[in-house]
This record gives sequence, C-alpha cells and structure tokens, in this order.
Amino acid sequence: MKINNILIASPMYKELQLILETEDIYKEKSFRFRSMEVEKEDFLWADAFVAFSRPNNFSFDNLKWVHSLGAGVDKILRGSEWKRDIPLTRTICSFGQKISEYGLSYILRDLQHQDEFSNLARNKDWKPITPIPLSEKKVLIYGTGVIGQEVAATLTFFGTKVYGVSLSGKEKKPFIEVFASDSNYQEVLAEADVIINTMPLTEKTRDLFNESLFKLMQDVLFINVGRGESVNNDALIKAIDKGQVKRAVLDVFQEEPLPKDDPFWSHPQVVVTPHISAVTTPEEGVACFVDTLKKIEAGESLPNLVDLDKGF
Amino acid sequence: MKINNILIASPMYKELQLILETEDIYKEKSFRFRSMEVEKEDFLWADAFVAFSRPNNFSFDNLKWVHSLGAGVDKILRGSEWKRDIPLTRTICSFGQKISEYGLSYILRDLQHQDEFSNLARNKDWKPITPIPLSEKKVLIYGTGVIGQEVAATLTFFGTKVYGVSLSGKEKKPFIEVFASDSNYQEVLAEADVIINTMPLTEKTRDLFNESLFKLMQDVLFINVGRGESVNNDALIKAIDKGQVKRAVLDVFQEEPLPKDDPFWSHPQVVVTPHISAVTTPEEGVACFVDTLKKIEAGESLPNLVDLDKGF
Repeated sequence: MKINNILIASPMYKELQLILETEDIYKEKSFRFRSMEVEKEDFLWADAFVAFSRPNNFSFDNLKWVHSLGAGVDKILRGSEWKRDIPLTRTICSFGQKISEYGLSYILRDLQHQDEFSNLARNKDWKPITPIPLSEKKVLIYGTGVIGQEVAATLTFFGTKVYGVSLSGKEKKPFIEVFASDSNYQEVLAEADVIINTMPLTEKTRDLFNESLFKLMQDVLFINVGRGESVNNDALIKAIDKGQVKRAVLDVFQEEPLPKDDPFWSHPQVVVTPHISAVTTPEEGVACFVDTLKKIEAGESLPNLVDLDKGF
Repeated sequence: MKINNILIASPMYKELQLILETEDIYKEKSFRFRSMEVEKEDFLWADAFVAFSRPNNFSFDNLKWVHSLGAGVDKILRGSEWKRDIPLTRTICSFGQKISEYGLSYILRDLQHQDEFSNLARNKDWKPITPIPLSEKKVLIYGTGVIGQEVAATLTFFGTKVYGVSLSGKEKKPFIEVFASDSNYQEVLAEADVIINTMPLTEKTRDLFNESLFKLMQDVLFINVGRGESVNNDALIKAIDKGQVKRAVLDVFQEEPLPKDDPFWSHPQVVVTPHISAVTTPEEGVACFVDTLKKIEAGESLPNLVDLDKGF
C-alpha cells in the first residue's frame, strides 16, 4: 500500500512536526498537522490519519490507514462502525517496560513500608519493620498481551509468583498459569497480594472489576493501568472499606482529568496519578509511527495491528 | 575442624533456638543460648561463638571459630586485636537481593515522581509529569562485593548504566567500569544520578563521603546502606543545601537508634529508615550459620570468610 498524504491531529502536533522533520520520510510525503480541529476537506485529502482519539467529524473518505498515538484504541473505535478494510494500528513500543516500572514502584513502596517509615519519622520514632521480599508475593495480572507479559517478566526476575487472566486463558510465558476471565479462578484471587489490570477497554472488560470480583479478593494492592471504565468505582470504595483491597493505585479513570469532587482524590488508601504510567513521548510516538508506515508500505506484517473483533 | 560447643549470644536467641531445634545438627552439637550477657565460663566452654557484636568481656579462650549474625563485622572486630588463626565468618545470604529491592524502591519513587503526585493530589490537581525510565539513568555504586554486584545486576536488568567504586578498582561484572576509590573518577561522579554506598566500615571507608567528595556530585539521589560512619553528616547536610545531593535515603547512622534531636529526622530532603534494608530474619540467620558450620567441618572454602586485613 502506498501512503502519500498524512493527516496528524494531536494537541502535541508541533512537537511531532519538529521530530518528523528530522526523518527521511518527511520529504517524501505530504503532511498536514492539526491540533484537534480537523476540517472535512482534510479527511478528503488524507490517505492516513494519525491521532489519539476520533474527532466528532471523523470520516473515512479516502483514508487507507488509521494509526493511534496511544496503546488504547477505545477512543478511536467509539462512535460509528469501523470500516473493516481500513487497518488500525496502535502505539505500543516501550509501554511494557514503562508500566513495569510504574507498577513495581508502588509494589515496592508497599513491601518496603515506605509510608509507615515516613509516619514514624514524623514522630522521630525508630521502629524497625522488616521489608517483605518480592519473592514472597503472588501477583495476578489481568491482560497477558505484550504489556502484561513484560510486567510479568519483570516481577519474575525478582522471584515473584505471577499468574495471568485473559479472555482466552491461553498459557503464555512467563506466567505460572493463565486463567480465562470467565473460568473459576477464585483460589488464586484469594491468595493474590497484588492485582494489576493492564486490559484494554472492550465490551468484555467494561465494569469487570465489580462487587462480585472484589469480594473474592483479600487485602490486595490493586493497580489499574488499563482503563477506568473497567472498574466500578463504588464497588472499589466498598472493597477498600471491607479490607478486600488495602490500597488502590489508579492511573486511569472513567473521567479524565479526574473531577475535583471525586472521592478518590482524598481517599487515604487511594493513590491517584494523572494517566502517566505509559506516556508516549513525542520521540517514541514518531518512531513507532514511522516504523509502522514503513511496514505498511512494504506490505510487512504489523505486530501493532488492532484486531477489530477483540478491540485491541 | 570439629565444632562441638556452640555459644550463641543474641537478643533474638529464643527464636534462633526454636528454629535450630528443627535442624539435624541440633542433636549432634551442644548449644548455649544467651541474650547478650555472656559469662567468662561460657567462653571457656565454647568452640564457636555466634553473635552480632563483641560483648565487652569477649575472650578468645578456647574458641576455634566466630560467626557474625550480620553482614557488617565492624562491631565484632572493634576493641582488641583479632587472633589471626581464628576464622571469622559473616551472614551474607540474600542481602544482595534485599538491598537491591530497598534501593530500587527509592530510586523508582523518585523517577516515578511519587511525592510530587501525592502533593498534587492533596490539591486535587491533575498535572501529568512523565516518569523517567531507569534506562536513562546512571548509578554509581560504592562497593563491588557480593552486595554491590547484586544491586548492579538488578539495575542492569532495567537498562540502567551502572558504575562501581572499590578499593582496588578491579573490573567486575556487571559494572560498566570500576574505579579505584583513590583514583580520579570525577567525571562519572558529576554525571551520576544516583549514588549508593554499600561499603563496610573500615579505616579506609570511615568519613569517605565528606565535603570534598560531595562537592563533585550534582543533584544526586544518595542512598546509604553501608555504615553511618562512612558519611560526614555535616557535609551531607551542606551538600543538600548546595544541591549537590537532591535527596538522601539513609538506612544506617553513626548512632543507632538515631537520636531524637538529630536533624536528619525532620529534614524534608532526607528519608530515614531504621536499619532495615538487609535484616537477617532468624530463619536466614540460622540457615547461613548451619551452612557455614557444615563447610567449616568439611574443610570446604568459605565464601563468607572475613579478610581480616580488609575488614570485610
């Protein structure tokens, strides 16, 4: 497939342009850069559309390819039906490593009793509490794709016992065992010390973490780096009250930015981070886009091609 | 060498005894357990002495072997001369992994901007700040022995660039480069993002981190898991004031417990933890002791034998 006219719509279009100018393909192709306001005429002109989300006036017109600047494509797929012959690709790049470091930082904060030591220091109180090694913990990761696998590999390096949950339940390395999300895996839920959601938002993962799932957990550290819509917020607050969840570390929310009146902000057992666990830097976004463009033009297989039936 | 009478002096002697009772050697040997009050007669009776530190009335008498329940042996070697034909062994076991997880937890807390996000959440302020990957950082580790090497291996797994400083400067894996402590390694000091001291206390490491060393650093995270006496406290506070050190994470101090009036307790850029980065659990202490005892009796080489000239 030959791509000539590329339409990029992103709040960071200026940075993307500056970086693209240093790439060989910049001279070979025609580019249009837009903030988020895209004209009808732009869609008529473009072969390829590159963005984080689908503008309200989005239209396939002459598009041959759509590329998502994020890993999650729910904001691109939403709205009307997708034209099934138009490939949709996404930015995955080094997200696995980034999310590993994000998750690990909060798991270690807990196991190293960092907050307890801060509180003790406030009272100048010298009270040794032995840190708990990662090797003594069990972690259950929802999502066994490239991101979940890399988080699992990082934890396995430290001797942590890592289990997975996926739609299919297909065994994958380095998970000790992978459970299908509709199977009975109560035992591993009850024994898990940490639960990490890395799943994309689809109709099957919407509201997945609800009261009936939380009540199978005991005293877990719950980390959500997937999508806010996969969590029932009221059920999560109740699960914390009941001790099913001891702390929630949330990087994604149903509404972003998180509204000022949201109870998560000031909850003592909730850590709020502003959707930063896997930020695409402009450099990485451009690198992934250029790489995908070259593969599309060469007719190569695309590891970041979205399966429209699965939604990721 | 045959060991029959074993004298164990430790505040946790009851726990040690309970665990030892489950070991085969418990029936084969004679044991005496003391808190820290050891009688002259006990030393006369014992072949082996096992403790964290040297009691004031310590005497070699009939001892054939001394085993330290800690990794640091400065509190056992202090006082009078050591009888050079008496082997001194120490507990190293899983200290490398423990100190890796301790150090990593504070490095990640910094790179993931955890404190910034806590402060922003207090004001319900949604302000994305991109975390910095471990692979973009340079770490300089003082001490390239078993502990320093394992910390280096852990960071290398994440792509961090790790350099070492040791007395000899001998190259060791997985350090990119090892510098002798008396050589000129100004450049790597100036470029280091994190400096970790894992060195034991000897005459050569006492007061090592003084004004002239701190002034070669720029905006570093300084982590001390070695010994408090290796750091000049006034020089460290000054280095923080000057921005040479941006944050100090201290697990060891010149006086422990840290006195209530110590300025470290309330310094906003100092994290105080109560000497917990490498705690010997009673189980590990016993396992290491039993393993060493078997090797001593079998005449095998001892990886945890202290080099009396080096002091570790």
